[in-house]
Amino acid sequence: MGVFKDKGVVYKPVDEVDLGPDSDEFYLRANVKAPRMAGLLVKVFSWLLESPIFGGILLFFLKRNNLIHKLVSFADIPEQPLFVPSHPYQGTEEKEVKCVETDMSPPQKVVQAVDCLQSPDYLPKSPQISFYRWTILDYARAYTSGETTPTMIADRLINYVRESSSKKLQMSFFINFYEEDILKQATESTLRYERGEPISVLDGVPIAIKDEIDCMPYPTTGGTKWMQKVRQCKKDACCVNRLRSCGAIIVGKTNMHELGAGISGINPHYGPARNPYNKSKITGGSSSGSAAVVAAGLCPVALGVDGGVLPINFTIGMVGILAATVEDALIAYAAIAGDLSSDQSGLTANQPKIGLPLLKSANYASSEIKMARYGKWFDDCTDDIRVCCSNTVAKLSEKYGWKTVEVTIPEIEVMRLSHYLTIGSECSNSVANYLDKLDKAEVGWDVRVGLSVFGSFHSHEYLNAQKIRNRQLQFHQKIFSVADVIVTPTVGVTAYTIEDDALQTGELDYINGAALVRYQIAGNFLGLPAVTVPVGYDKSGLPIGLQFIGKPWSESLLIYIASALQAVCISGYKKPEVFYDMLAKE
Amino acid sequence: MGVFKDKGVVYKPVDEVDLGPDSDEFYLRANVKAPRMAGLLVKVFSWLLESPIFGGILLFFLKRNNLIHKLVSFADIPEQPLFVPSHPYQGTEEKEVKCVETDMSPPQKVVQAVDCLQSPDYLPKSPQISFYRWTILDYARAYTSGETTPTMIADRLINYVRESSSKKLQMSFFINFYEEDILKQATESTLRYERGEPISVLDGVPIAIKDEIDCMPYPTTGGTKWMQKVRQCKKDACCVNRLRSCGAIIVGKTNMHELGAGISGINPHYGPARNPYNKSKITGGSSSGSAAVVAAGLCPVALGVDGGVLPINFTIGMVGILAATVEDALIAYAAIAGDLSSDQSGLTANQPKIGLPLLKSANYASSEIKMARYGKWFDDCTDDIRVCCSNTVAKLSEKYGWKTVEVTIPEIEVMRLSHYLTIGSECSNSVANYLDKLDKAEVGWDVRVGLSVFGSFHSHEYLNAQKIRNRQLQFHQKIFSVADVIVTPTVGVTAYTIEDDALQTGELDYINGAALVRYQIAGNFLGLPAVTVPVGYDKSGLPIGLQFIGKPWSESLLIYIASALQAVCISGYKKPEVFYDMLAKE
Repeated sequence: MGVFKDKGVVYKPVDEVDLGPDSDEFYLRANVKAPRMAGLLVKVFSWLLESPIFGGILLFFLKRNNLIHKLVSFADIPEQPLFVPSHPYQGTEEKEVKCVETDMSPPQKVVQAVDCLQSPDYLPKSPQISFYRWTILDYARAYTSGETTPTMIADRLINYVRESSSKKLQMSFFINFYEEDILKQATESTLRYERGEPISVLDGVPIAIKDEIDCMPYPTTGGTKWMQKVRQCKKDACCVNRLRSCGAIIVGKTNMHELGAGISGINPHYGPARNPYNKSKITGGSSSGSAAVVAAGLCPVALGVDGGVLPINFTIGMVGILAATVEDALIAYAAIAGDLSSDQSGLTANQPKIGLPLLKSANYASSEIKMARYGKWFDDCTDDIRVCCSNTVAKLSEKYGWKTVEVTIPEIEVMRLSHYLTIGSECSNSVANYLDKLDKAEVGWDVRVGLSVFGSFHSHEYLNAQKIRNRQLQFHQKIFSVADVIVTPTVGVTAYTIEDDALQTGELDYINGAALVRYQIAGNFLGLPAVTVPVGYDKSGLPIGLQFIGKPWSESLLIYIASALQAVCISGYKKPEVFYDMLAKE
Repeated sequence: MGVFKDKGVVYKPVDEVDLGPDSDEFYLRANVKAPRMAGLLVKVFSWLLESPIFGGILLFFLKRNNLIHKLVSFADIPEQPLFVPSHPYQGTEEKEVKCVETDMSPPQKVVQAVDCLQSPDYLPKSPQISFYRWTILDYARAYTSGETTPTMIADRLINYVRESSSKKLQMSFFINFYEEDILKQATESTLRYERGEPISVLDGVPIAIKDEIDCMPYPTTGGTKWMQKVRQCKKDACCVNRLRSCGAIIVGKTNMHELGAGISGINPHYGPARNPYNKSKITGGSSSGSAAVVAAGLCPVALGVDGGVLPINFTIGMVGILAATVEDALIAYAAIAGDLSSDQSGLTANQPKIGLPLLKSANYASSEIKMARYGKWFDDCTDDIRVCCSNTVAKLSEKYGWKTVEVTIPEIEVMRLSHYLTIGSECSNSVANYLDKLDKAEVGWDVRVGLSVFGSFHSHEYLNAQKIRNRQLQFHQKIFSVADVIVTPTVGVTAYTIEDDALQTGELDYINGAALVRYQIAGNFLGLPAVTVPVGYDKSGLPIGLQFIGKPWSESLLIYIASALQAVCISGYKKPEVFYDMLAKE
């Protein structure tokens, strides 16, 4: 029973915790006690952690010093564990919302989504400014009018990707990009348009896929050098299959943080995915390449993953959309949404089991939206982000009359640590048998450190993390009884610099890491829908996002809010340093 | 990654496993490599396990030698983990079945159950032999006719319990038994009968409660000497509350294996619960006292728990009924069935969320029931049990025309080990914070050994156990596509002797333990309903049971089968050595 000797926090039952603005709940800043490491240092650290006896001792102190022991492992938590935050659909009573049935085909769902967008009632429309980004509907119009063809776009895309991969740019957007396969898909799409029979507005639209989602004819590397050797990709994941069935051109597998085990996107095997706004900066991650190709204008939409599928994570993997506009996110989401049969890679526990709520009309506008804001958490970011996000929230209140409700969401840092413990345990379990078969030298150094930590968690700790999950879900449910959404910045820091010493070994930067995921945990860990919209730039020109987290099944409200926000901000959007104008006139 | 070095089994995907009678799946007998220990030996073993470094090494070898490493911890399992085997109610299409609504009150549900039992269609009726056991309906008739009163029964019960606790018998049925509280309840019930207003047929019927279920005004000891000091019982568990609302007299908290952490019922703090058929033998457990008081005739019904509630186990705790007849099990089950609100002790994850299927009529009889039998597993028991159970199955075929379907249920022993790993991890997690606060000397020696093993499981192992759970649920679903129920003996050995050296320290007997739980895992781990009926006796006169495991929501079929089985066997039932005739004429 030695394991229980270390004293942990004794948590009050949820009902006794004050969630009001004047709560005496303490806001604990991420107390990361681990210096940045890269190069030789990370190698030595990795060796130490992997050594049989000393490694265990080192891990003990690492976890203790970073408060995992006190806040999670040895804590006394009155709630039961919640393993999978599935939210049964309770039916929607919102008159403004149309619920797309799950038994519709993906192209039918896309039609429904476009109908909603084009309905005269749909609000708020983005102002008709000269927007430099081409949307899905722009592609569809250009193909239908004959202004261009999918084949011409594919040719252009191939050239641009070659350029972005050149020695000069080294953007490292893709891990695999098969030109012939892309041209073949484009030819088929071009023929459909020639026959006047495009499948949907997605027909011929280039969409990139994160390289942990199965997608033929590509291997699935998960950002590693070894996964493709021990695990064969045999068929499309469900989400890919659905996009393909709408006619979309799948244009390659995007770069990612190795195994999704970090959030910088610095991949020692395939190069760091570089930020189109400033190529000396990281993209963030782990869906690094997917975000970058969309930012760089190569695709209007890409698929990313939050948490990890393959399965890498059993209870916290979720496929998501990265798109340049809210409207495109809606269309792509309509295409992939719905029940997933259990035999397909891409299945995740908190994937919606039934249809997608879509906004039919603008009646939301007549109701006053209440945004919950936890001030101490909201403000736990850089000055630029704080000012920009606060101003944007003020602008929303001013322009739309939405109200801010000040709240306290307790134990944010505890949730981050519990999530880390969960993702680590599940990742460790799912890759264990692969790792067993291969040479450790094939694994990046930062990921080796991660796997050592991931592999150190006890079932007791895992169960406690699931108790925290239950607790946090209850806190969030209570917040949602007084507000429609929770508003936060998207990240605590903007994209930071890719240091040279990280290129070969990867880097460990838990301080920046904690700042990047600070606002991202609830969506993933609790299975809540969330949306983020760019709302400005920091002093060096790097984008800043504002995030809204909604209650289960509130996707339509989130889309409405995101549209309203985009309408306010779009006129200020800047073109990235590395940008490709796919539909430009020759 | 040292943890992954030990090689484990690589499991085939479920769909590639042959479940037919001629499958080449190997039946692995429980390969328990641990000698029986009691007295000084168990003390030394416990000290060794609790020593900081050596204990860890010992645990490693213990788990490895007992095949936990090879079969579960380091196995390569293609399925995803299944954490909670909840079976959403799909609606019943069986015409013979009436589904009692969840929003009925417990007394209304009891009325429904009695209506079913008394309907002229209800079959099979037990033959009208002179049965020495008094049923719930016998009590109700005796009270209504004025032949006796609840107060007279309470007086008699108190005398009998005193007698059973005397130096001569030392049956150790109860941990706490408050005479005054029982008399008070009896007086109230007697008054209700005098007014002609009994609440239900359960009014005045004595029912005993296992001492890990909250029940006022008793402390909840969980079979320990310490739990009541660190955790206060504040209100009735939901199931107790429901019985009480039907007028039942709650007659004390029954003895149990300490913490439910063993299956012999030898409790060093409260004495071994002795078997009424032979008081030198164990009762089995952990619901030892509940089984014993029913067998001894003191109550027609008692509540037991499979797995552990309190919560001691999060995903595998389940309250169940121990009754002397199938009809009484049905009535009591009707009283406690239904949705449980989350704030009550007694909540378990796989508790039914909606009403109870009851049998309306005998139309089942017209259909041929298919009993799946896995021969190698069925026969893995003592000769007496094998012969008796096989003969009974043959008798069922002969008398009712039911068919036996020979099948293979793979990985039975793997399921037992995974269940052990799960129950151990969850028990360890839930009692950790209590244990932290108290002197280890208050914990029994066998339980100290158990807690050392329980506390050794890694999150990786826990997740693998949940993958096995998913795998087994799929195997069982496939079996249920070719058969209505699975038939097995209830236990692999009949009640064994309570040795003197175990009285003070408890004992470790993993070999007999594995034989006792051999057929019990699926119901608990997979959340399947099951019923067991006595069908004969071994050479020394100890009872033998036959078990039926059904698909989710097949309670009505199981009750039908159990009734049919009881009708065949009841004439051979023997009176136990220690037996109290509660309704005997003075």
